[in-house]
Amino acid sequence: MSENDAIKSNDVLPRLAALINTRKTSSAEHSYIARLFQQGDDAILKKIGEEATEVVMAAKDQRHGAAPAKLIGEVADLWFHCLVMLAHFGLSPAAVLAELERREGISGLDEKALRKALARASDNA
Amino acid sequence: MSENDAIKSNDVLPRLAALINTRKTSSAEHSYIARLFQQGDDAILKKIGEEATEVVMAAKDQRHGAAPAKLIGEVADLWFHCLVMLAHFGLSPAAVLAELERREGISGLDEKALRKALARASDNA
Amino acid sequence: MSENDAIKSNDVLPRLAALINTRKTSSAEHSYIARLFQQGDDAILKKIGEEATEVVMAAKDQRHGAAPAKLIGEVADLWFHCLVMLAHFGLSPAAVLAELERREGISGLDEKALRKALARASDNA
Amino acid sequence: MSENDAIKSNDVLPRLAALINTRKTSSAEHSYIARLFQQGDDAILKKIGEEATEVVMAAKDQRHGAAPAKLIGEVADLWFHCLVMLAHFGLSPAAVLAELERREGISGLDEKALRKALARASDNA
Repeated sequence: MSENDAIKSNDVLPRLAALINTRKTSSAEHSYIARLFQQGDDAILKKIGEEATEVVMAAKDQRHGAAPAKLIGEVADLWFHCLVMLAHFGLSPAAVLAELERREGISGLDEKALRKALARASDNA
Repeated sequence: MSENDAIKSNDVLPRLAALINTRKTSSAEHSYIARLFQQGDDAILKKIGEEATEVVMAAKDQRHGAAPAKLIGEVADLWFHCLVMLAHFGLSPAAVLAELERREGISGLDEKALRKALARASDNA
Repeated sequence: MSENDAIKSNDVLPRLAALINTRKTSSAEHSYIARLFQQGDDAILKKIGEEATEVVMAAKDQRHGAAPAKLIGEVADLWFHCLVMLAHFGLSPAAVLAELERREGISGLDEKALRKALARASDNA
Repeated sequence: MSENDAIKSNDVLPRLAALINTRKTSSAEHSYIARLFQQGDDAILKKIGEEATEVVMAAKDQRHGAAPAKLIGEVADLWFHCLVMLAHFGLSPAAVLAELERREGISGLDEKALRKALARASDNA
């Protein structure tokens, strides 16, 4: 993958979010996403629980020999329905990515702090 | 957000995945992620179910007036543990993003095809 | 199992519910259930999502050769935490059993009605 | 409720399990349960994840003023699909109730043991 491909590919979440947002005013007859929006909160949240369960089942299946494409597909389903839910609640994946980025930094620091604390604790023991 | 910021931000999933992969050989004492890897499949998959439930609860809370930061944080938790699971099963978020990109294309086509099919059906009715 | 045993065994949900209710005023230090009650709604609901995930994983494991005791134990965990949740919300398992009993009746009727409707539909086809 | 009613009501899980078992050989056209059996493991397990999510949503709704009948109905749905899953895997609710009964005993003992251990620990502190 060239650097350009990587940029294009990593851009997919905001692009999908934009596509999903256009479905808010589509007819539910023609669009699965529009139908979910019209059904509302519980229909969308139920999908989160359902897709998370399918991720767990696909992971178990991969452990027992199934092809990885199944698990990849189920994680894609789960993230897709997260995007629909975010849009439904007026939020964007950019906010989630920013939060993950924040933690990426903190995580490094935290783990260093944790290491020091544990080192001190074992010195005292 | 400048275009550079967007690129940096959208890059966070592969970057986090790389960080997570380094934890596979870390001591479980110092790292939450290393501990999850050592506990294995069921501990990681249980987190998927748990975090999906927390997303659902946070969405309900936002509907009843809670700040959006809570829901954003819970989606970040869910995606983060998806990254840990993908790493544990030797997979990358790039594969999930590629699958979402593929569907983004298909989805447009599908919905067009669906629209035509429905138009034909209503012409015949 | 004698009839007496069956009655004793079927009585276990209300009996457990009564035991769980006594923990509402116990010290959280000494009782897992008391601790859950004190942590409140989200801690209890998170357990529902977690235990449901464990049921799904245990079922997959049984399909791949694990002993049934694991699946039985996970369903017991799920139902147990449902009892804690019902108690937390001031409800009893008797109400759930009554609802299931009502459906047992309706289900028989429904399926008869469905059968008739389908028979009529296929006559007309 | 008279004692007879209680016995009858507590008997509902084994009775529903027997009804469910008869659906294993029914036509999927006429019976929702028969259809689930024919769709197999993943369809049934997906329902467990879905119904657990609906329990969580109904509990949140009750906290915000919804009638308890909704939560009761969702727990009934979850338990019902647990019965279908148990039947699909050749297991009975009696085994789950026996496990819960065993824990009811252990739980009393455990909490006593825990109390003693904590008392000793605080004596030594």
